[in-house]
Amino acid sequence: MALAKESPPVSPKDARSGIDQEAEYRAQTRLWLRLLACSTLIETELRRRFREEFDFTMPRFDVLAQLDREPSGLVLGELPKRLMVSAGNLTPIVDRLVEDGFITRTPSNLDRRVQIVCMTVEGRKAFRRMAKSHGSWLAELLAGFPADRLDGLTGELDALKSAVKDAMQKP
Amino acid sequence: MALAKESPPVSPKDARSGIDQEAEYRAQTRLWLRLLACSTLIETELRRRFREEFDFTMPRFDVLAQLDREPSGLVLGELPKRLMVSAGNLTPIVDRLVEDGFITRTPSNLDRRVQIVCMTVEGRKAFRRMAKSHGSWLAELLAGFPADRLDGLTGELDALKSAVKDAMQKP
Repeated sequence: MALAKESPPVSPKDARSGIDQEAEYRAQTRLWLRLLACSTLIETELRRRFREEFDFTMPRFDVLAQLDREPSGLVLGELPKRLMVSAGNLTPIVDRLVEDGFITRTPSNLDRRVQIVCMTVEGRKAFRRMAKSHGSWLAELLAGFPADRLDGLTGELDALKSAVKDAMQKP
Repeated sequence: MALAKESPPVSPKDARSGIDQEAEYRAQTRLWLRLLACSTLIETELRRRFREEFDFTMPRFDVLAQLDREPSGLVLGELPKRLMVSAGNLTPIVDRLVEDGFITRTPSNLDRRVQIVCMTVEGRKAFRRMAKSHGSWLAELLAGFPADRLDGLTGELDALKSAVKDAMQKP
């Protein structure tokens, strides 16, 4: 009887919704595994080509891509937020880009404690060259996926992204 | 006239297909950025929870997940292929799991040069506990995405994955 108290008899309704819940769990897991497989597959291939063709890593390219949109530069502290990486992981990447002359890092005129990173002319040239290759590699990899279904899939991923963001903001 | 030879006049048809190509490039880039944003968002959150709740990293969990499907163990060399990571990156992860008693690594009886990795009882217990949390975190994160659209999105990602794999196998 003590056992019966701990696990009360399951009503048909509960059992049914238990099955539905189980099926939904499995569908969510399948979606996540596929999503991860797709992004890993494409990312691994793009990384490999970047390394082979330009001797450049993806995180370095991602930093340049952010700065390409900001002609007047960006507060250093903004970069980790935009790239969803930790500031600690970003420091050696930024250091290396400064060393190589692709970006500059200077104190802000308004507040010397704030650092501004900005792309150099050389950095912009290198970025444009790599971005062009990045675009054509991507086009090559996605060529077999029907063009008229691209926007539909992007739309569903948009909805997924919003749902996940909302879930993360719940207390 | 020499210039005209290098860049021949564009016929209306060519110009049109150039525009289509440009639009397709942009649609492909949008898809890729959204795909990457979704997987990064979910993965970052799952990693964070793994670290906080279990003091465990995702690559270690991924190794256990592979071994959970192989009751008689797995040839060590199979792991990097299945996890799409380099053997070099995997070595310290396997070493650490062996040290912690979650897996064993022993020479094969058939060929002493081949190593077999196998989950221990303790490893299986820890994996099951973490997998359960992983499942409920994922369910929580994806709860806002309509359940009846899960399989549709998974199907489109399947098609995308096949298209990319085909493209990668082209010479």
